[in-house]
Amino acid sequence: MKSRAAVAWAANQPLTIETIDIAGPKAGEVLVEIMATGVCHTDAYTLSGLDSEGKFPAILGHEGAGIVREIGAGVTSVKVGDHVIPLYTPECRQCKTCLSQRSNLCTSIRATQGQGLMPDHTSRFSCEAVGARGSEIFHYMGCSTFSNFTVLPEIAVAKVRPDAPFDKICYIGCGVTTGIGAVIWTAKVRPGSNVVVFGLGGIGLNVIQGARMVGADKIIGVDLNPSKVEMAKKFGMTHFVNPDEVGRDKVVQAIQDLTDGGADYSFECIGNVHTMRQALECCHRGWGESIIIGVAPSGAEIATRPFQLVTGRVWKGSAFGGARGRTDVPKIVDWYMDGKIDIDSLITHTMPLDEINTAFDLMHEGKSIRSVVVF
Amino acid sequence: MKSRAAVAWAANQPLTIETIDIAGPKAGEVLVEIMATGVCHTDAYTLSGLDSEGKFPAILGHEGAGIVREIGAGVTSVKVGDHVIPLYTPECRQCKTCLSQRSNLCTSIRATQGQGLMPDHTSRFSCEAVGARGSEIFHYMGCSTFSNFTVLPEIAVAKVRPDAPFDKICYIGCGVTTGIGAVIWTAKVRPGSNVVVFGLGGIGLNVIQGARMVGADKIIGVDLNPSKVEMAKKFGMTHFVNPDEVGRDKVVQAIQDLTDGGADYSFECIGNVHTMRQALECCHRGWGESIIIGVAPSGAEIATRPFQLVTGRVWKGSAFGGARGRTDVPKIVDWYMDGKIDIDSLITHTMPLDEINTAFDLMHEGKSIRSVVVF
Repeated sequence: MKSRAAVAWAANQPLTIETIDIAGPKAGEVLVEIMATGVCHTDAYTLSGLDSEGKFPAILGHEGAGIVREIGAGVTSVKVGDHVIPLYTPECRQCKTCLSQRSNLCTSIRATQGQGLMPDHTSRFSCEAVGARGSEIFHYMGCSTFSNFTVLPEIAVAKVRPDAPFDKICYIGCGVTTGIGAVIWTAKVRPGSNVVVFGLGGIGLNVIQGARMVGADKIIGVDLNPSKVEMAKKFGMTHFVNPDEVGRDKVVQAIQDLTDGGADYSFECIGNVHTMRQALECCHRGWGESIIIGVAPSGAEIATRPFQLVTGRVWKGSAFGGARGRTDVPKIVDWYMDGKIDIDSLITHTMPLDEINTAFDLMHEGKSIRSVVVF
Repeated sequence: MKSRAAVAWAANQPLTIETIDIAGPKAGEVLVEIMATGVCHTDAYTLSGLDSEGKFPAILGHEGAGIVREIGAGVTSVKVGDHVIPLYTPECRQCKTCLSQRSNLCTSIRATQGQGLMPDHTSRFSCEAVGARGSEIFHYMGCSTFSNFTVLPEIAVAKVRPDAPFDKICYIGCGVTTGIGAVIWTAKVRPGSNVVVFGLGGIGLNVIQGARMVGADKIIGVDLNPSKVEMAKKFGMTHFVNPDEVGRDKVVQAIQDLTDGGADYSFECIGNVHTMRQALECCHRGWGESIIIGVAPSGAEIATRPFQLVTGRVWKGSAFGGARGRTDVPKIVDWYMDGKIDIDSLITHTMPLDEINTAFDLMHEGKSIRSVVVF
């Protein structure tokens, strides 16, 4: 079948809107009509050429929501008409990792996904019209939501309630889950805890509302940009630390002063190895846990004195919020529909596919929290 | 009263045996007759002058066992005649840390202990005979077990069963608990887990027997010295990796090969920041936890790529095995008396106080696992 899609032909070039050919779905796969998709920093990172796994040409996008339009042989967990959110972290419930019950990082299709291919080692996307550019187009993060239609393995879609608006819940496909999930599934923040959040972008705001939802006491935001304070307070931030005001080398002390000794939990949502160290060291002696969410530049390393760990701090990381996609993503949709979390305020721009490059521009200029493309 | 004691007058000088004066016990304190004491690397570290908290003159020693001979006003938890193990990590059960129920690092007397003083900011030890050397002698780690008699806060003694031999259970005062406790209380190793132990010294051997006791599957030892293999196997090691045989830069790969992807838990018992990194990175993606036990040189830092944590590995540390001294140390004594753990094989040398400097020599030469001084 044919589909309109935004194709990334090469690093650092604007996407172009093309009519592509889609094959499938094959056995165990589903064809999904994407109704809306967020544009995330990770898409921009890959488009920048810095992502060592990035392959071109590709259809980017990994934060979508849509409707199952066709199912392949043997598909049993979803049916035509179901509303779904694509999962870049699938949940097969059968691999060693899924069965461990200690991690959401399902490994069942990891190898092919990293190569931009479906589990049978082929692509479903092609674009013959472009001639010299070649016909095969790679998948991206197993999702490729910058296409009106896409093909996904059955284990890589979360079935969600049909009354939830696509142009909001698409954000649960990545950013919302990454932030809220890190609080709930990775850190398992206890009620009454003091929580520190480094970076008040989209992920940080979702960490904040996750911490509020589970009953955190102090929720301290750390950011160099005071213009982010108002929104962060709306989401539950109780205290703000600006490193340029307290002194960039005194951030840890400022947090310890605010928390009677240190944070119970801290979250790094920037991707800077220096703030990752601060996030660890501002944790309370004896039990404070620091969770890395941000993605650091390739090759960058975190460091600290081992004494920080021997005296009881714990250093962890979180990917996709520790959420099991098919099990936990539908819960977050429910929380949104029940009014427990706010997504609407985070979606600062909505646009048609034709204007998708604008979303990247807004992101680079720091002028958006989240742009959503509506098909 | 008078007591014989080994006094450390200054860094890098042999201890001398002196007759000292002991005051007290004051309110909340107990006078303990030390019957036996281990000589630990931490004593040697402080004697070397590298310990920034080390003060001289002091009575070193922190791994003892003895009998309560006198109690101060208000002491209720022990009585004269009770057998006890001194605790360099006390358990007050009232401070923020004890009440958190998430850490054993009781803070109630930490400040004065670090200054070599009792909680009332004074020392109980003096030695007038030495004239020009000055009369006050500092306490050490709140224990000072290199003295036939010592004074301890009530919260810093664990009452243990009276039929346990002092010359063996003294080792529970530090090394045994540090190793076994890290398995049981810090890591909470699950039955069937694959465990990796870096360093097959006394701590490593105790980690190994702790892992065996809780039903670990593979227990892999890593050490450059193959002469340590025999003893490690006796304690439960199932596999051995010699970095000089597999290649020092291939240790992580060798462990991943042995464990189908990585360790469930790893323990660093050396104090080397490079092996700390290997210990983290040999852990299984998704859930592997690495626990730092070894003490690194002052100023040394651990480092890794944050990706190691984001993909599910956890970096922790352990001090005194995560054990709550008064609650957990008596349990370890029971495990020893029940034959669940072996201490006898670890005590390679026993000597009278007069020969205590020999214990340091043996340690420096790598010729002992543990020397015990019997009074």
